[in-house]
Amino acid sequence: MVLERINSPADVKKLSIDEMHTLAGELRERILNKVNTIGGHAGPNLGIVEATIALHYVFNSPVDKIVFDVSHQCYAHKMLTGRKDGFVEGNYMKYTGYTAPEESKHDLFKVGHTSTSVSLATGVAKARDLKGEKYNVIALIGDGSLSGGEALEGLDNAATLNSNIIILVNDNDMSIAENHGSIYANLKKLRETDGKYENNFFTSLGYDYYFIKDGNNVEDVINTFKKVKDTDHPTVIHMYTEKGHGFAAAVADKETYHWSMPGILDKKEAAPQPQKEDWNSITKDYHLQKVKEDKNYIVVTAATPGVFGFDKAYREKLGKQYTDVGIAEEHAVAYSSALAKQGAKPVFHVMSSFIQRTYDQLSQDLALNNSPMTMLVYWGGISAADCTHLCTFDVSLISNIPNIVYMAPTNKEEYLAILDWSVNQTEHPVAIRVPTCEMVSTGVKDTTDYSILNKFKMIHEGSKVAILGLGNFFFLGEKVQDLLKSKLNIDATLINPIYMTGLDKDMLNGLKDNHDLVITLEDNILDGGFGEKVASFYGNSDMRVLNFGAEKDFPDRVPLNTLYERYHLTPELIVKDIEKTLKTAECSK
Amino acid sequence: MVLERINSPADVKKLSIDEMHTLAGELRERILNKVNTIGGHAGPNLGIVEATIALHYVFNSPVDKIVFDVSHQCYAHKMLTGRKDGFVEGNYMKYTGYTAPEESKHDLFKVGHTSTSVSLATGVAKARDLKGEKYNVIALIGDGSLSGGEALEGLDNAATLNSNIIILVNDNDMSIAENHGSIYANLKKLRETDGKYENNFFTSLGYDYYFIKDGNNVEDVINTFKKVKDTDHPTVIHMYTEKGHGFAAAVADKETYHWSMPGILDKKEAAPQPQKEDWNSITKDYHLQKVKEDKNYIVVTAATPGVFGFDKAYREKLGKQYTDVGIAEEHAVAYSSALAKQGAKPVFHVMSSFIQRTYDQLSQDLALNNSPMTMLVYWGGISAADCTHLCTFDVSLISNIPNIVYMAPTNKEEYLAILDWSVNQTEHPVAIRVPTCEMVSTGVKDTTDYSILNKFKMIHEGSKVAILGLGNFFFLGEKVQDLLKSKLNIDATLINPIYMTGLDKDMLNGLKDNHDLVITLEDNILDGGFGEKVASFYGNSDMRVLNFGAEKDFPDRVPLNTLYERYHLTPELIVKDIEKTLKTAECSK
Repeated sequence: MVLERINSPADVKKLSIDEMHTLAGELRERILNKVNTIGGHAGPNLGIVEATIALHYVFNSPVDKIVFDVSHQCYAHKMLTGRKDGFVEGNYMKYTGYTAPEESKHDLFKVGHTSTSVSLATGVAKARDLKGEKYNVIALIGDGSLSGGEALEGLDNAATLNSNIIILVNDNDMSIAENHGSIYANLKKLRETDGKYENNFFTSLGYDYYFIKDGNNVEDVINTFKKVKDTDHPTVIHMYTEKGHGFAAAVADKETYHWSMPGILDKKEAAPQPQKEDWNSITKDYHLQKVKEDKNYIVVTAATPGVFGFDKAYREKLGKQYTDVGIAEEHAVAYSSALAKQGAKPVFHVMSSFIQRTYDQLSQDLALNNSPMTMLVYWGGISAADCTHLCTFDVSLISNIPNIVYMAPTNKEEYLAILDWSVNQTEHPVAIRVPTCEMVSTGVKDTTDYSILNKFKMIHEGSKVAILGLGNFFFLGEKVQDLLKSKLNIDATLINPIYMTGLDKDMLNGLKDNHDLVITLEDNILDGGFGEKVASFYGNSDMRVLNFGAEKDFPDRVPLNTLYERYHLTPELIVKDIEKTLKTAECSK
Repeated sequence: MVLERINSPADVKKLSIDEMHTLAGELRERILNKVNTIGGHAGPNLGIVEATIALHYVFNSPVDKIVFDVSHQCYAHKMLTGRKDGFVEGNYMKYTGYTAPEESKHDLFKVGHTSTSVSLATGVAKARDLKGEKYNVIALIGDGSLSGGEALEGLDNAATLNSNIIILVNDNDMSIAENHGSIYANLKKLRETDGKYENNFFTSLGYDYYFIKDGNNVEDVINTFKKVKDTDHPTVIHMYTEKGHGFAAAVADKETYHWSMPGILDKKEAAPQPQKEDWNSITKDYHLQKVKEDKNYIVVTAATPGVFGFDKAYREKLGKQYTDVGIAEEHAVAYSSALAKQGAKPVFHVMSSFIQRTYDQLSQDLALNNSPMTMLVYWGGISAADCTHLCTFDVSLISNIPNIVYMAPTNKEEYLAILDWSVNQTEHPVAIRVPTCEMVSTGVKDTTDYSILNKFKMIHEGSKVAILGLGNFFFLGEKVQDLLKSKLNIDATLINPIYMTGLDKDMLNGLKDNHDLVITLEDNILDGGFGEKVASFYGNSDMRVLNFGAEKDFPDRVPLNTLYERYHLTPELIVKDIEKTLKTAECSK
C-alpha cells in the first residue's frame, strides 16, 4: 500500500514510477468507493489521477500554486495533500468535493462553477510578480470548461503576462455531454497530429505549447511537466486524458458517469423502473409534441442536458430543433433571445446556480429587446448543496430586471399551462422556475389567462392573516393555513402569487379590509426577493408583513432541516412568529 | 450632393465608386457636425463609413441582417437607411446613437454593451435555418469588443453553424484605450502579413478567413464582400480600418476621440483649466500615493480608463501597478479577486452599467472566497442616459450577494476614509459607489471606524419622521429635512446609512420610540434595493415606511427632471407623500 506512506506532496516526490502506478490504482479505488457510497464526480476524478500524481511529483505545492477549474477533479489532490482520511468509509463527508482553502493550504480557492481557473491563476501570477517572488502557477482547466466566456477572457489576458503561468488543458473530449463549439474541433485536430497541426488555437494566442498524447501515462506527464517547470512565459500543456480511466463503465459511458449517484460499483443491469411522471418527464413530453407541431420550436441547453433528463436518444429525437451550446451560458441567452426575436420559439434550460453567469445577457440581449424567449430555471430553492452550487439567488437576480416575467408554478397543470402560454406568446421574455417539490397533479386542465400579468391566484379567502406561498413554498403555505386553523382558530387567506416580478396591487389592497398580517413564503434568499416587494408595498399602511425565506449567506452542505429551522421555515415556527406579531399588533392598537 | 438621393439602401446600390467617395465625405461631415453639437462616438463612426456604404451596396438589408456590436458605429448606417433627417441641426436628438428596432426595420436589436453581436447573429442565423429561409447574417464586431467573454463564446459556437454567417471584424487596433489581450497580437501579425500568418486565431476555430488591408477603401471592401456574399459556411472577414478616419485630430488621438463632448470641430489649443478637485482627481491622487508606498497596490480597469481620468501619462506613472484587461470584466473581477487573495491590493474600477457583466464572478470568484478586493463603481444613479447604458441596477445586483460590503459615501473625506479602510483591510470584498453628485468637502478628516459593518451615521436626531438618505441622495435628504421643518414644522431625523448591504438594526429599532415614519432615498431602482430591506425590517411593527427611488424600467434618454418628477424624487413631492402618509397613520390610530 503506497498511499499509506503519503501524507503530503513531499512523500510523492520519493516514489518510483512503479510505485506511482500502484498509487494510482489505490487512489482510484478510494475514489470509486467514495462515489459508490455518497455519490460524486466519478469520471473527472478518475481521469486526472496520474496527472495529479505528476503535478505533486514535479511541482512544489503549496509554494507552487495549482488552481483547479470547477475543482470537481480534486479527489486525488486531496488524498495526496493530507486528506486521505476523508476517503474511507464513515468519513466521506469530512471534506467537500471541491477545493476548499479552509481544509488545506494546498487549495487556493473555493471553486465550483466552471471556467474560472485561468483568470484566477493570472491574478495569482501577477501578485507573485508584484511581490518579486518566484514560483509556478498552474491552472488546471478542461473537461468542457474551456468554452466559458470567463475562461476565454482569461486565456486572452494570461498570455500577456511576461512571466510564469502554466495552463494545463485536460482534454478528455467531453463537456459533461459531448463537446460543442469549434474550439473542440481544434483540440481534436491537435490530438490527431500529436500536437503538430499548424493552426493551433493556443499558439495563435501566443502561448508556448506542449502536447501530451497520453495523460494517463504518469511518466509521460512527468517528463512534460519537468520541461515547463519554472518557465518564464505563458505556456499551455494540452494533455489528453481518458475520462473515467480505470473504470470500464465510466469509460464506456462518459456522460452518465460524469456525476454519479451512489451505487456505481454494484450497478447491475437496472430493472426497468416503472415510468413515473415528474417535472422532467412532462417537460420532455411537451417538447416532443411541440417539435412535431412547429418547426420553429427549439430546445436549448448549455452543457448539462442530463440534468433535465435529455439523454442521447432524446436529444436525437429533437434533431435540429435542439442546440447544446456547451458551457457558454452567456451565448445561450443571447442566442435564444435572437432566435425569439426572429420568430423562432426557443426554450432555454438552465440550473439556477448557473443562470448567474448571464445577468448582463438577461438584461441587455433579452429584457431590453423584449424578446419572447422562454427560460426554464431548474433546481431553484434552498438545499443542502455545496456552497458553490446554491440555487437560492435566482429570484433576486432575475426578478429585478425590467421586462422579464418570472413565474413560479406550483402543480403539473399550472406548470404546463404557463409553459404553453409562454412559448405561444410574443410579448415578453418569460422565465419559469421549475418546481423542485414533488409533482402534484390537480387532474384539471388549467385555463388561467396568464397574459394578464401579475394577477395572483386567490386560493382561499379568509381573514386576519393572508399567506402568500410562492412556488415550492405554496404547500408550506397550506400547512401554515391548517395550523393557524387548528392552533389559533384563524381562517387564514391563502394566495398563490405565480408572478415574482410584479405585485397584484388590487388583491393586496383588498386584503387591507379584513387582514392584519400578510406573510410571504419564498424558497430563495429574502434579500432582493419577492417578500421585500410586498413589505415595501404595505409600508404606508397598517398592514403587518412578515417575510419568510433564506438569509443572505453561502451555507455549505448544511442539512435542509437545519436550514429550515434556522430560517423559521417550518409550519410551527412560522405560526409562532405569526402569533407573536399578532399580539404586538394588538397591543399597539 | 449624393446623400440627397439616398433614401434607402436601394439608392446606395445605384452609386458609382466615385459617388461613394463623395458620399463618404458627406456622411463624415454630418457625423462630425452631430458630434460637434451634441457629443457622441466620433472615432468609431468615422472609421466605419466606407464599410457601411459597402455593406449596403453588396448586401440587401433588411432581408440580409446586419447585427452591430455595441452599435456605437451605426451613424452612417442610420443615414443610409432612411434616417438622414436626424443628422441635421435641430434634429440631432431624433434618433438614438445606437441601433433601435423601433426606429427602422434595418436595426435588429437594441444594443449598447459590447461583445454581443456574434451570439445574437448566431441566433438569427439559426432562426433562418429552422424556417428554411435564405439570407445573409452579418455580425459587425471589433473596436475592442472581440475580447469580451460573450463574443468569444459566440465565436466558438457560430463556427459550428453549417450555414451562412459572416463575422466582419472591424480591426482598428484600439479597445477604447489601446488594445490589451493576446488576441490583438494575433490580429497585428495577420495585418503585418496581409492575412497570411499561418497561426490564425479565426481559422483555428474553423472559420473561412478573408483579409481586407484597407477597410477605408470602399472598392476593396466591396470586392471582398462580394466574394463572401451568400456563403454557405461560417466566415470571418478581418478588415483593418482607421479609427477616426478623415478627421486628423481623431486619427492622431484615437482614445480621446472615441467618445467626444460637443465642440470637437472648433477645438483650439484648450486653455489650461484651473485644476478643480473632483471624485476622479482625488481618486487618482490617492492611487499615486499608494503606488509609491506599497508595491503590492494595483489599479485595474477594463478598457475604459478614460472614464476615470486615467490618461496615458497617468497610466505610465502607475507602471506595472496598473492592469487594463481590455473589454473583459469577468476576467477583471476574478483576476482582482485572486490578486487580493494572494496579498496584493487591487482596486478595480468599473462603470455601474458594465458591472452587470460579472454577477457570477462577483458571487463565486470574489464573495464566496471573501477576497479583500476593492471595487469602485462609477456613475451609479438615475440619469438621462440611453436605455442601453443605465446605471440604476448596481445596488440590486451587488447588494444581494453574500459577503460583499457595498458602501455609499457622500463627501470627499468620507469617500477617502472608506477607500483607505477598504484597501488596508483583509476581511471583506468591498465595493464603493463613487458618488456622482458634486463633491462636497467637510474639511475635517473622517475618523470613523468602518470595520464595524452596517453602522449607520446619525446626522441629526429629531422625531416623527426619519430620513435615510443614501449616497448621492443624502443631500436630497437634507433638503427634505429642511422642507419638513419649514412646511410642517417637523424636526426630522437624518441618517447617512453608508452601508447598502446590511441594516443597522439597533439604530432602526431605536427609531421606533419616537418616529411614525421612516423614508428611504436611493439613487437606484427600488426593486431589490436598499429601501425594500428597511420596509421588510419594519414589517412586524407600527412603523410606516416609504421607499423612494427609480421604478424598474429602461427609460431611454428621458431628461433627469422628468424622471425625478415621475419617481417623486423632488423635495416637494417627497414631503407631499410624507404628509399624506402621516395623515392616514393618524386616522388609523
